[in-house]
Amino acid sequence: MDQVNYRLPKRKDGQKTFDHILETAKKLFSKNGYQATSINEIINKAGIATGTFYLYFDDKFALYSYLLAKYRKSIRKAISEGIHDAHTRYEKERLGLRSFLKFAWQDPLAYRIIWESMFADKELFKEYYQTFSHDYVRQLNLAVGHGEVRDDVDLETLSYMLMGISNFVGLQVLFRDTLTDLDLDRITDNVMKVLKTGMFNEK
Amino acid sequence: MDQVNYRLPKRKDGQKTFDHILETAKKLFSKNGYQATSINEIINKAGIATGTFYLYFDDKFALYSYLLAKYRKSIRKAISEGIHDAHTRYEKERLGLRSFLKFAWQDPLAYRIIWESMFADKELFKEYYQTFSHDYVRQLNLAVGHGEVRDDVDLETLSYMLMGISNFVGLQVLFRDTLTDLDLDRITDNVMKVLKTGMFNEK
Repeated sequence: MDQVNYRLPKRKDGQKTFDHILETAKKLFSKNGYQATSINEIINKAGIATGTFYLYFDDKFALYSYLLAKYRKSIRKAISEGIHDAHTRYEKERLGLRSFLKFAWQDPLAYRIIWESMFADKELFKEYYQTFSHDYVRQLNLAVGHGEVRDDVDLETLSYMLMGISNFVGLQVLFRDTLTDLDLDRITDNVMKVLKTGMFNEK
Repeated sequence: MDQVNYRLPKRKDGQKTFDHILETAKKLFSKNGYQATSINEIINKAGIATGTFYLYFDDKFALYSYLLAKYRKSIRKAISEGIHDAHTRYEKERLGLRSFLKFAWQDPLAYRIIWESMFADKELFKEYYQTFSHDYVRQLNLAVGHGEVRDDVDLETLSYMLMGISNFVGLQVLFRDTLTDLDLDRITDNVMKVLKTGMFNEK
């Protein structure tokens, strides 16, 4: 991830092609998996010239890691917009979880792409969750300092617990046939009941 | 999963070949992924005749689902042996989690195979976690009946929370370079502190 292996388009029509390549690759990756998808398939399905692909990406891995970075950003954006009005860690967890579940419901392909990254590149997968955990620990640490979160639990373990809860309750949501805003509230509230007594200090 | 698409060997030398095919496939699947691994690769790498493969399995999917069912059984076996002496739900959760983390550490390939099943077959993945959730809910329901677990949380959501915690704390463990029994105890205890106040009733 240290070297730049992609080139962003400079003009509007280039942007359109670039986005179209990403969208095509996303569908193929999530349908057949990263390993089983070839550059040729992406090129054929997108209906572009071979040279056009290499104009933007060094190789399949470059495209994939760009996509993963993009999802990481959009998940974070969805969460940070969701928690915009929250002032306590508790409210941040609640609104953050709700935004994450909504994102998973609205973009199940993104969900699959991230899960599959374990197979695309083990280090990329590890780096993704370790960075997430690292940032989480920093936030939790502040909340411990404010007396909001209990101070007798290892925060790294707590961060993995919280990521696991979001991701698997995300599966519960994805396995459903329908999801209303009310369902989303109900599921979020159930999780928060357990977290309230589990990780937060009594007020 | 309704039709039998594999045939178990009847003789000792057949069993040896059968196990060898499984072991080879397991390595290839976890290295390159299910989709990118072909039957021919498995046959070549295992050094067997093509006919031998089809003696036991209808196709790649048959082999894969056999492997997945096998892991499901061995994970369950590891957990049920681990919780053998537990009499309370709390003790069952604690020992079950510890066994699961130990299993993940000792057999990371199994871990990868199950995660990848989302791509091999979406329904298989769904069925795997839904069955797990269903059994979990049954157990949790008994514990609610005994007054051990709080009665104001939806048990389906709680089951996904618990599966998520195990799986992601499993990642935390897998990302480590070393793991002693003491580390395992410490990580398990941290999780249980949160669960104790989060989902269990005070004694």
